[in-house]
Amino acid sequence: MCAWAAAGLPIVSHGAEPGLVVHREDPLNCETSLPALIGGVVMPSTHFYVRNHFATPVLDPQLYQLTVTGLVERPLCLSLRDLHNLPRQSLLATLECAGNGRAHFDPPVDGEQWQSGAASTAEWTGVPLVDVLNRAGLSAGAHDVVFRGADSGPVDGATGPVRFERALSVRDACDAGALVAYAMNGEPLPLQHGRPVRLIVPGWYSVASVKWLTEIDVVGHPFEAFFQTNRYHYEYERDGGVVREPVRLQRVRALIVEPTDAGSVAAGQIVVRGVAWSGAAPIDHVDVCVDDGPWQVARLVGEARRYSWQWWEFFAHRAVPGTMKVRARATDEAGNTQPEQAEWNRFGYGGNAIQAVAVEVQ
Amino acid sequence: MCAWAAAGLPIVSHGAEPGLVVHREDPLNCETSLPALIGGVVMPSTHFYVRNHFATPVLDPQLYQLTVTGLVERPLCLSLRDLHNLPRQSLLATLECAGNGRAHFDPPVDGEQWQSGAASTAEWTGVPLVDVLNRAGLSAGAHDVVFRGADSGPVDGATGPVRFERALSVRDACDAGALVAYAMNGEPLPLQHGRPVRLIVPGWYSVASVKWLTEIDVVGHPFEAFFQTNRYHYEYERDGGVVREPVRLQRVRALIVEPTDAGSVAAGQIVVRGVAWSGAAPIDHVDVCVDDGPWQVARLVGEARRYSWQWWEFFAHRAVPGTMKVRARATDEAGNTQPEQAEWNRFGYGGNAIQAVAVEVQ
Repeated sequence: MCAWAAAGLPIVSHGAEPGLVVHREDPLNCETSLPALIGGVVMPSTHFYVRNHFATPVLDPQLYQLTVTGLVERPLCLSLRDLHNLPRQSLLATLECAGNGRAHFDPPVDGEQWQSGAASTAEWTGVPLVDVLNRAGLSAGAHDVVFRGADSGPVDGATGPVRFERALSVRDACDAGALVAYAMNGEPLPLQHGRPVRLIVPGWYSVASVKWLTEIDVVGHPFEAFFQTNRYHYEYERDGGVVREPVRLQRVRALIVEPTDAGSVAAGQIVVRGVAWSGAAPIDHVDVCVDDGPWQVARLVGEARRYSWQWWEFFAHRAVPGTMKVRARATDEAGNTQPEQAEWNRFGYGGNAIQAVAVEVQ
Repeated sequence: MCAWAAAGLPIVSHGAEPGLVVHREDPLNCETSLPALIGGVVMPSTHFYVRNHFATPVLDPQLYQLTVTGLVERPLCLSLRDLHNLPRQSLLATLECAGNGRAHFDPPVDGEQWQSGAASTAEWTGVPLVDVLNRAGLSAGAHDVVFRGADSGPVDGATGPVRFERALSVRDACDAGALVAYAMNGEPLPLQHGRPVRLIVPGWYSVASVKWLTEIDVVGHPFEAFFQTNRYHYEYERDGGVVREPVRLQRVRALIVEPTDAGSVAAGQIVVRGVAWSGAAPIDHVDVCVDDGPWQVARLVGEARRYSWQWWEFFAHRAVPGTMKVRARATDEAGNTQPEQAEWNRFGYGGNAIQAVAVEVQ
C-alpha cells in the first residue's frame, strides 16, 4: 500500500492486490508489486513505482515556467500552455531506477533496498527535447545540458540543501529521443511523477528523467553535482583499484511476474510469465531454466518495441510435488545478456543478475 | 461526471475535467469527454466510454465459467484461472459504439443521443478467440459463433427479458483477431467493461465485443436475435425501398479534440489536434479545413497501429478575431474517407460525417 504522505494525499488502496510496495514515506519510495501486473505493456499510473530523493514539490501548473538558459542563442521561458502548443510526441517507455535489484548484492549495499520492482512502463506525451533545444539554439561551446528539478534537500557531505539536477551531453540530449513530458498514460502527470513537467530519457536509468523540471541550462564544461558525480555512477573495485563509470542505459533484464517467489502452484502445467527490457536494444529472446534443466526459449508476447518492456511466457510441466526453481534470462538484439551475478559496486547500481523464484508445487 | 449508480458504486469524479459525460444512469451510458484526452494512444480506463443495454451484472470471478458448446468436438468449461493459464495476447484496440454520432443525424433518430465521444482506446489482454475455438474444435456444419453475455432485460416488442447475445460467422470469429479478454490497461476488467471476461473484436463496432461473456455457442445456421437482427444493422431508405446491411467494421473517422466546439482561443497560432481511426485499415492521412479554405494535410503523431486510433495535429494561423470553423477528415489506407453527411438510416448507426467545430478567436 502506498501512502502519499509526503504530499498530504490520502492513502491509495488497490484492494487485495496492492499495486505498490512502500519502502519509505518521506521522501516517497515505492516499488511496483510484480504479481499485480496482469498483461499489457502499459500499466496503470497508480501501480507505477516511485523513487523520490526529497519531499515532493507541489508546483502550480498555471504558474509553471520552464527556462532554457546558458549557452543558447535565444533563452526561452515556456509556460505549460506554450509546451502544449508545440508539436507533440508520445512514446511507450520503461523507466527503471538504477538501484533496482540493490537488495540482491552481496555483501549488502547502503541505499533503498529495492527488490526487482523499481521498474514500470507508461506512455509519455510531451515535446521532443531536441525541438526545445533547437528553438533555443545551442551556442558554440555547448558541452552539457543540465536539467534541474524543483526538488531539493539534505544529502550526505553537504552543509546546505542540494537541488536535484542531472546533465546529459549535448549529443545525448539531441540523440536519445528524450521528451519534455507533461502527460502520462493520457492524463496530466501525477504529482509523484513530476507534475506538471518532467524529462523522459527512454532507455536510460531513470535518474536521467528529471521530475518537476523547471530549468534547462546549457553549460560549456562537463557538469559536476551530487547526483551526477557523487552518486549514480558505478564504482567497481577491480585489481585493487577503483574504477568509475557513469550510469547510463538500463541493463538487459527479465523479471518473473508469475509464479511469485515462495508461492505455491498446483502440479501439472505451470505458467511462467514476465517482462523483459534493455536500454540498448529491443529484446531478442528470453530463456527460462527450471530447476537445473537446460535453458529453453520462452514465447515473446506482442510486438517488440524500442523503449518498452515486452511480455514473455513459458509453459513448464511438473507432475511431482516439491520445490521448483525457475530462472529467466533476457538477451537483447545487441547481444547483451544477464549475468549470474552482477558485478558488485559501491552504490549498488545496475543489479541485473538473473532472477530466480522458488515455488512449492503441490 | 459518471455515476456508477447501476452497480451501486460511488460516483467517480475527475475534478475540473470530467473524463465521462453521463447519458443515462440505468442502464449506464457515458461518453468520453474529448477535451479530457491529452495525448497517448491508451487512455485511462476511468475515461473510457460506457455503453450498456441493461443493468450491470456482477459476476464473481472465483465462480466464473465460460462454456463453449454446440457444434464443437470437445465442449469446454473454462474458469478464469483456466483462461489465465492459456497463451496470452495483448492488443491496443479502439472500441466505438455503432451509434456514435447519432445526435448529428437529420432528421433525428431515436436511441442514445451520442455526440462523438462513444469511442475510446485501451490495451486489452486475454486469450485469442481462435485458440479457444481450436481447443473446442469446430464440428462440420458450424456456421455462426454466438456470444452470450450475462446481461439481460426488457426490449421493445418482446414480452419477457432478452439476453444480450451476438454472433460472428465462423470465418470472422477465426480471422478477426478477436480476444477473450480478462484485462484492460493492465488490470482486471472493470465491472462496467465486462468483468471478469468480455470479447474484444478489434476494428468492429463494439456491439460485437460482448461484455460479461459467459457462453460461446456454435450453431449451424445464421443466428437471429434481437441485437443481431432487430438492431445493429443499417436500414437505409433507397429508391422507395428498404435496404438492410449488417453493422460490422468501424467506419473511418477523425475527431477534433482541441479546440473544443464553442470554445475560445487566442488569435495567432491555433493548435488543432485529434484522433482518427478506421476498422478497415490504418489511417493514411487526415486533412484539416479552416473556414472555407483548402483541405491541408495534418501531421500524424506516433506510429500507425492496426486497430487503434492515431493522434494527428495541425497548426493553423488566424490573426483576426472572429468565429473560426475547423473541420477534419480522415482517410484510411484502404481509401475510405468520411462523407460530408452520413447516409441516414433508421437506427442512426455509422454516423461518421466530417466533424466541424466553431471556435471564437479573440
